[in-house]
Amino acid sequence: MSNASIVTIGNELLNGHTTDTNAAYICQQLLSVGIPVVSVYTVGDDISQIVRALKRAAEDADIIITTGGLGPTDDDLTRRAFAEFLGVELKTDSQLLETIRQFFAKRGLPMPERNAIQAHIPDGAEPIENPLGTAPGIYAKVQNKVLFALPGVPFEMNQMFEASVLPHIQKQGGDKYVIIRKVRCFGAGESVIAEKLGNLMARERNPLINSTVNSGIITLHVVSAGPNKEQAGDLAQKDVEYLHSLLGDLVFGVDDQTLPEVVGQLLTAQKKTVATAESCTGGLVAKLLTDIPGSSAYFTHGWITYSNKAKVEQLGVPQQFIDQYGAVSKQVCSAMAKSAQQKAQTDFAIAITGIAGPAGGSDQKPVGLVFISVCDSKNCRTERFIFPQDRVMIRLRSALTALNMLRLALKSDAG
Amino acid sequence: MSNASIVTIGNELLNGHTTDTNAAYICQQLLSVGIPVVSVYTVGDDISQIVRALKRAAEDADIIITTGGLGPTDDDLTRRAFAEFLGVELKTDSQLLETIRQFFAKRGLPMPERNAIQAHIPDGAEPIENPLGTAPGIYAKVQNKVLFALPGVPFEMNQMFEASVLPHIQKQGGDKYVIIRKVRCFGAGESVIAEKLGNLMARERNPLINSTVNSGIITLHVVSAGPNKEQAGDLAQKDVEYLHSLLGDLVFGVDDQTLPEVVGQLLTAQKKTVATAESCTGGLVAKLLTDIPGSSAYFTHGWITYSNKAKVEQLGVPQQFIDQYGAVSKQVCSAMAKSAQQKAQTDFAIAITGIAGPAGGSDQKPVGLVFISVCDSKNCRTERFIFPQDRVMIRLRSALTALNMLRLALKSDAG
Repeated sequence: MSNASIVTIGNELLNGHTTDTNAAYICQQLLSVGIPVVSVYTVGDDISQIVRALKRAAEDADIIITTGGLGPTDDDLTRRAFAEFLGVELKTDSQLLETIRQFFAKRGLPMPERNAIQAHIPDGAEPIENPLGTAPGIYAKVQNKVLFALPGVPFEMNQMFEASVLPHIQKQGGDKYVIIRKVRCFGAGESVIAEKLGNLMARERNPLINSTVNSGIITLHVVSAGPNKEQAGDLAQKDVEYLHSLLGDLVFGVDDQTLPEVVGQLLTAQKKTVATAESCTGGLVAKLLTDIPGSSAYFTHGWITYSNKAKVEQLGVPQQFIDQYGAVSKQVCSAMAKSAQQKAQTDFAIAITGIAGPAGGSDQKPVGLVFISVCDSKNCRTERFIFPQDRVMIRLRSALTALNMLRLALKSDAG
Repeated sequence: MSNASIVTIGNELLNGHTTDTNAAYICQQLLSVGIPVVSVYTVGDDISQIVRALKRAAEDADIIITTGGLGPTDDDLTRRAFAEFLGVELKTDSQLLETIRQFFAKRGLPMPERNAIQAHIPDGAEPIENPLGTAPGIYAKVQNKVLFALPGVPFEMNQMFEASVLPHIQKQGGDKYVIIRKVRCFGAGESVIAEKLGNLMARERNPLINSTVNSGIITLHVVSAGPNKEQAGDLAQKDVEYLHSLLGDLVFGVDDQTLPEVVGQLLTAQKKTVATAESCTGGLVAKLLTDIPGSSAYFTHGWITYSNKAKVEQLGVPQQFIDQYGAVSKQVCSAMAKSAQQKAQTDFAIAITGIAGPAGGSDQKPVGLVFISVCDSKNCRTERFIFPQDRVMIRLRSALTALNMLRLALKSDAG
């Protein structure tokens, strides 16, 4: 089975001010034709570093793809590094020189002398056409390794990758296709989910199941390999369904579905509406709901009652509740939700009140304490949470938890 | 002179579905203390691959930093790879185990058994505290190399890097210091700003000035090199001041200051308050304002009047305005702002109404048409914009433009 290693080249990638997107793009493309990337190396504009990375990539894999270092300036060293790695001289490719000259001629310009260097390629290697810029790519074969050098400009690189590199690699086959599916969960920690999965996460299993966590959302990546696209896909689909049956309501969606999207789909399908009454999240729940195109079908009203005065005046929360229980309390939260539902005349209302910090916490009511209510015209469910981490995470977890409570309410309504 | 190599670990980084932002962050941080990163390796969740990457990183540099693979699941292999690389056994650190147990206890939860693995560290290595999660880091020294293993979750990693890794590394020192300062602008395009700067952006200049653009915010990066921190810093500071004098009110802040932060500081300093009335931005302006700790000092009330009914009922927008001019009109926008200011009794109110798309546009009122009002008790300024791109960008540009209008109103008030 073929595999690949990527070398991305450029000082700008090592000073932290340019994020490399080329590697992720190439990884995805290769995996889609059954070729896993086993390593990515990022090095600066330095011949010996580039050569060392090429040697290491050749130890790791049989397809090597580099990006960057093909421009016309002194810091573009990939051509020379390729020649050194291959143990050959650079020569001028006269046809390539003519192509570059024409690239400028078409724009009514003479070719700057320094661009002539872009027609240098290692002896025995072949140029790869770049219809969108002056930097041609390089293709070389040595022993049982194939090498491709592509420019670093993503727009040019993508075009060349799809037009020239991918068709070539596909011929090599891929005797194995890989499909990646995702199962997205909310409402339990990573270790709780891992325990439910048991030995499904074993390293030697196919599909391989990995988990990642972000803001309380656990994503299970189902990486399925098969002799062709269909079989890999079927195997993945079986696991997706099995994970669903194991994890039940913890699963909110698959692949790239988000929680606000799923909630929006449930509301739309059931022709239900929702209003929001937010304190500590300050509009974040409404923002997430209205991120989704078409959300005006189910979201109409939101209140941000950040001060106590706003809670009393705009939502009619009894002043007595605030005096007796505090603004961060079950009583105030459910009063906010009930009032929002009645004022907006929606099917549901969500309310959130809590202490996002960093200040404002106490022993009884620490930073991270959040109450969340989801009410319809008859029932009101209020839950108490203590979320970890900082203001940003407390607010985000609160908003996502509220959306998840609404999702569960919608599912039980439908059931 | 010390240098560093980074190893980022995780299958999700090699399948192209997660973009690695940790490497860029670490590169920036290290460069700021004079330590260049010479290579970055990305490998999957595979012990032999991780060990091989550690060996190669140790050939390249004398500081090695890894991210990822410290979670509680079977695919978290960094602890074992570190032990193998160091040629020692893993042992349980009982103090660490207690810390992890307490992390759960604080949340009223028992520690899942599988989290105990996070208390394993290589014999002779030291744990690095992770105040924000259960995955502690690892610090080890072998011959003249220092190694740091950090978790992959950016939020936890950043905090640990700044609290524990950076102070340690700073002691090692470098012989050339690079200081990067930023000047942040809003209200003109990148090319307009580049023209005002003239030859300040020449490539051979020190400090080197680069510009990047994101959501209408232009950031000028001033990259200053010097023989020590003070000289590099002084040179950068001179440029920051010069850019300020050239660009005037286009500059809203420096370094990592955000527009909501700057607006919050102006409101706080002037003891002024603001309310929001949002339609197409759906709570985003309020969310941005309340992202800032302490925002309850100046933000009290927000309305999200997403439907026409909500605009009429909650903000008393005359139904006649909506019938005659449409919900996306100057008249409706200023009525929303005036009403919000009066109801909330704040010094200022912001209102936004527009068409974020993708649907809902027409020839007269295309997708991207947005009205924004900033009013105080006497004056009301309403502007009309047509923002490019998609729903996400139209909403973000609208919200940032509203905050920038408030910033300019506060500055003229103060003057």
